[in-house]
Amino acid sequence: MERGSEPEEDAGAWPLRHLKSPVVRDPDFEARVRASFDKQLFMATLGARLEHIAPGEVRIAVSHRPDLTQQHGFLHAGAVTSVVDSACGYAALTLMEPGAAVLSVEFKVNLLAPAAGKEFIAIGKVVRAGRTITVVSGELVSLDDGRETVVAILQGTMMAVRDRAGLSD
Amino acid sequence: MERGSEPEEDAGAWPLRHLKSPVVRDPDFEARVRASFDKQLFMATLGARLEHIAPGEVRIAVSHRPDLTQQHGFLHAGAVTSVVDSACGYAALTLMEPGAAVLSVEFKVNLLAPAAGKEFIAIGKVVRAGRTITVVSGELVSLDDGRETVVAILQGTMMAVRDRAGLSD
Amino acid sequence: MERGSEPEEDAGAWPLRHLKSPVVRDPDFEARVRASFDKQLFMATLGARLEHIAPGEVRIAVSHRPDLTQQHGFLHAGAVTSVVDSACGYAALTLMEPGAAVLSVEFKVNLLAPAAGKEFIAIGKVVRAGRTITVVSGELVSLDDGRETVVAILQGTMMAVRDRAGLSD
Amino acid sequence: MERGSEPEEDAGAWPLRHLKSPVVRDPDFEARVRASFDKQLFMATLGARLEHIAPGEVRIAVSHRPDLTQQHGFLHAGAVTSVVDSACGYAALTLMEPGAAVLSVEFKVNLLAPAAGKEFIAIGKVVRAGRTITVVSGELVSLDDGRETVVAILQGTMMAVRDRAGLSD
Repeated sequence: MERGSEPEEDAGAWPLRHLKSPVVRDPDFEARVRASFDKQLFMATLGARLEHIAPGEVRIAVSHRPDLTQQHGFLHAGAVTSVVDSACGYAALTLMEPGAAVLSVEFKVNLLAPAAGKEFIAIGKVVRAGRTITVVSGELVSLDDGRETVVAILQGTMMAVRDRAGLSD
Repeated sequence: MERGSEPEEDAGAWPLRHLKSPVVRDPDFEARVRASFDKQLFMATLGARLEHIAPGEVRIAVSHRPDLTQQHGFLHAGAVTSVVDSACGYAALTLMEPGAAVLSVEFKVNLLAPAAGKEFIAIGKVVRAGRTITVVSGELVSLDDGRETVVAILQGTMMAVRDRAGLSD
Repeated sequence: MERGSEPEEDAGAWPLRHLKSPVVRDPDFEARVRASFDKQLFMATLGARLEHIAPGEVRIAVSHRPDLTQQHGFLHAGAVTSVVDSACGYAALTLMEPGAAVLSVEFKVNLLAPAAGKEFIAIGKVVRAGRTITVVSGELVSLDDGRETVVAILQGTMMAVRDRAGLSD
Repeated sequence: MERGSEPEEDAGAWPLRHLKSPVVRDPDFEARVRASFDKQLFMATLGARLEHIAPGEVRIAVSHRPDLTQQHGFLHAGAVTSVVDSACGYAALTLMEPGAAVLSVEFKVNLLAPAAGKEFIAIGKVVRAGRTITVVSGELVSLDDGRETVVAILQGTMMAVRDRAGLSD
């Protein structure tokens, strides 16, 4: 189906999207993310758990609970967004230098399927890490019945804030 | 500053954005929104209150609480999104015919200022109401100290779902 | 339809969205926008014309032409986006201090109706102007037959870039 | 860096994002995409070429030309969006049944780097294909100097339109 001589291996290489070689500027990034997560009291309200921290990638687990639902009994789109936004924000923070705080500038979420099911994992990954602006890509996966379903995807922008009174991590 | 003869009153008329003449297809739209909101248990978890229901516009109030915060003590972007998404979804529902259920397809949120302050109001308005797709525009306003600050704006898409088992309003 | 005593005039005041009191940092903002627009050769390719420049608001006109269409003969969503993005970028530039260049960070476009018709106007307005980040809101309006139809709306982020070799306005 | 016993191979499996097993409903999808692309006269205006068509994935190439630039000489964000939007729309069309036409509902674009360089490829992929709504993910990659740079990423929604006079593919 190709026109011309494009090599076959490109089919796997594209799309690139996620950052291939993240540069760690703070060796203590994991402790830093854990400490900041513990201060996000809204994560405790949602029962969200930090599951995985790596340079440029963070995963947060959350379980279905009746008090997190919308009118049809699915996880509310806002609860979905909350955990994917936090996963993406912390993925960005893993690559920031010490002293910078992370803030969400904007994000866009597409809801692909009702957030039915009992267990979910939010995956946040860095697409591009700049000094001020970090672009992120995230998703929420439903894990029920040994089947993985992508419930939502996010594309957004995080910002490093420095020297602002009272803001860190 | 004009080139040519554009009449001065245009400056007020543009941008149009919000729907000028919403058509109500269900005279019981207010009761319907209230009943659905009461089933969104996540709204109760956030302490959110339905404040205003009109054709094509819904407002939801929420107050600062420590258990809704991110790491710097501001309202979490996900909590912000939750109430603006619900306000927009219910604004869409006010214009749907009886029997249709509303689902969020996607939304995009820009966070303009930290969600500092004690009292907030989420405003959801319909931009275009179609049979299947409704486009919405929302914002979260902080109301402290007699001053109104726009904390976040949303642009998104809601969908009317019909004849799907178990889904209504 | 109100719960409680909210005053009636609020209905007009909300949503706020657009910046109420734009601060001009460069008195020559109009000449600056015109000069930069003339350097955007893609605008000439689209036949786009700068129609209005005010602090925090810029309007660009474009006409239907067969070579700007998608497969059904409507203006291509990319052509729509191009003029609304430029209107929003220049709206942001009207409020930047001398020497800063404007770049689009991201934008989100909802297409409300097929871009049918002969004449269109793109309106870009500033929602929040910060030192680095400016949030904008835009729309494309079709002007045919004395009727105004909103074809597309945009919500996005512009950035002021300083001291980067070769970039200005 | 894991908490608990999550198997290591998950690191490669997540994020899922793109559709794993696209279902082809029209065996003539390739000819259909080519015919529709040829009717998008705006693609010819941009000098865009259809490079690759597979179930759920389409790639479009475009080259730098002075008449496609913004004020700093880079490819205009609107030109970038145009080709990525078309790649995504046609990726969606590859999976639609005969007779359905594709329209863009909305998209969100993050610009990661100035679109410098001479040759670009836009990649559009399907994330979820529904009867009415198809969610897509795209990017523009700059190919200069043997180096691939992601210039922009897109997340958006396409819609299948049926039985609307005059609309096909």
